[in-house]
Amino acid sequence: MKEHLKEYISLIDKHLDEYIPEKNNPQSIIYKAMRYSLFAGGKRLRPVLMLSCCKMCGGDINEVIPFACALEMIHTYSLIHDDLPAMDNDDLRRGKPTNHIKFNEATAILAGDALLNKAFEVVSSYNGQNIERALKAINMLAMSSGTEGMIGGQIVDMESENKSITLDELEYLHLNKTGAIIRSACTIGALMGGGCEEQIEAADNFAKNLGIAFQIQDDILDVTGTEEELGKPIGSDANEHKNTYVTLVGLEKSEELSKKYSNKAKESLEIFGKKADFLKSLTDYLITRRN
Amino acid sequence: MKEHLKEYISLIDKHLDEYIPEKNNPQSIIYKAMRYSLFAGGKRLRPVLMLSCCKMCGGDINEVIPFACALEMIHTYSLIHDDLPAMDNDDLRRGKPTNHIKFNEATAILAGDALLNKAFEVVSSYNGQNIERALKAINMLAMSSGTEGMIGGQIVDMESENKSITLDELEYLHLNKTGAIIRSACTIGALMGGGCEEQIEAADNFAKNLGIAFQIQDDILDVTGTEEELGKPIGSDANEHKNTYVTLVGLEKSEELSKKYSNKAKESLEIFGKKADFLKSLTDYLITRRN
Repeated sequence: MKEHLKEYISLIDKHLDEYIPEKNNPQSIIYKAMRYSLFAGGKRLRPVLMLSCCKMCGGDINEVIPFACALEMIHTYSLIHDDLPAMDNDDLRRGKPTNHIKFNEATAILAGDALLNKAFEVVSSYNGQNIERALKAINMLAMSSGTEGMIGGQIVDMESENKSITLDELEYLHLNKTGAIIRSACTIGALMGGGCEEQIEAADNFAKNLGIAFQIQDDILDVTGTEEELGKPIGSDANEHKNTYVTLVGLEKSEELSKKYSNKAKESLEIFGKKADFLKSLTDYLITRRN
Repeated sequence: MKEHLKEYISLIDKHLDEYIPEKNNPQSIIYKAMRYSLFAGGKRLRPVLMLSCCKMCGGDINEVIPFACALEMIHTYSLIHDDLPAMDNDDLRRGKPTNHIKFNEATAILAGDALLNKAFEVVSSYNGQNIERALKAINMLAMSSGTEGMIGGQIVDMESENKSITLDELEYLHLNKTGAIIRSACTIGALMGGGCEEQIEAADNFAKNLGIAFQIQDDILDVTGTEEELGKPIGSDANEHKNTYVTLVGLEKSEELSKKYSNKAKESLEIFGKKADFLKSLTDYLITRRN
């Protein structure tokens, strides 16, 4: 599984490097700032999920590479903007200075904008055979990162800081904030991979449950991880009065929930038989990760 | 011409209102913030240009309405982010508090992101007959607002503040910063309106020249307008040590240049005969405007 994972990651990295190269023009600084965060050691989880779902449905992964890279750009832009002083005001991410610390705030705002924009440049330059399918996939991508997806989740997250919320509300928040683009990673992968309705739905169910398990694990790591493992100070969620699974239901119950959701995720893939083996192992790997 | 202009504007406003309605959900605040800037009295120049170019090529304007609205969303997001404290730090726009003053910085950042994202949600939901053409238009839209278009121009503008630049450099900056999306307004209009290569090129030439004339006029108004006409303090460009046509070549020469470029714009439309009348009058109207 880990070999396979490495291959996917280096394929994604190669294409990201081509889509956003170093430039020698008057606006070279924006490329530098975009690349800085794009190549800051991300796990490439979303692209990997997309490639795997495409493959699991019997598709050609070349069909989804632009979409997979676009999703990583969108994920990266959201981190850059999230880290800004007006938002989470974080100086470190993955052990490195955040974009606005490395460059400056104005550049970080524009680099985020540019990554979101580039995502749509890349997917709209599709020149394959399944143009109708591609347009549908672009729409799924845009919907998942917008006001009824990721951005919607971010604003609800922001509004709920320093307020106590229920477990249901926390789930709504994450279903949008992190869940929506994890879901579009899997459903676009399945769609572009030629999956039928039933397969796309199974991929969606997998993603929905994995997304929650992944988020719970994130919250757990914030209290059980070390600064070295995380690349940022531990306990920062509690210090910033954020609502997390751990602050809401405690560590033990969180671990139980994480297990429950990751099992549900794996069960969603039954219809794929052996073809789901990679994603099942990946699920186990993700919820036992230390960073 | 003015009647016609009003009709176009109210058509655009009606559709913008439908694309970004008031919402009654946990993320309602983001819709409120997006609408605040979207309906703050913009001239709708870019959508109007797109609709007119589509019509001039004999097309059905319903085909371009999603694209026209998307362009206005992109224009609006760029203004919201431009006004932020880390960027131009403006408190007023069109006589009203800027987005981050009315709401807060975090909400303004997200509202800008959301408008850019929404633009691509809208155009990718295209369900007409010319799907290949639509995908091409989405790509033109994305290219014009990205690092080799508007964002590229913004970063060059930022980098050149407090430096003296040449007239050529100023033109490069504006060709990207404001010019790129004025050009895509016209070329997408012509493309989706069924225009042939020659017509699309003519629309592009028109837009290129109009964009420069429009920018020069903007710079002129910054020194000759009144605060009431502009809805913001006059002379702010010079105070902020910005490079403008007026600071570079003076007022008289700027007026000459504005005339020259608007004439070139109108000449580009000769191949359309009488069908170009609206755009020619609009050009004259734009470069004699007082706000």
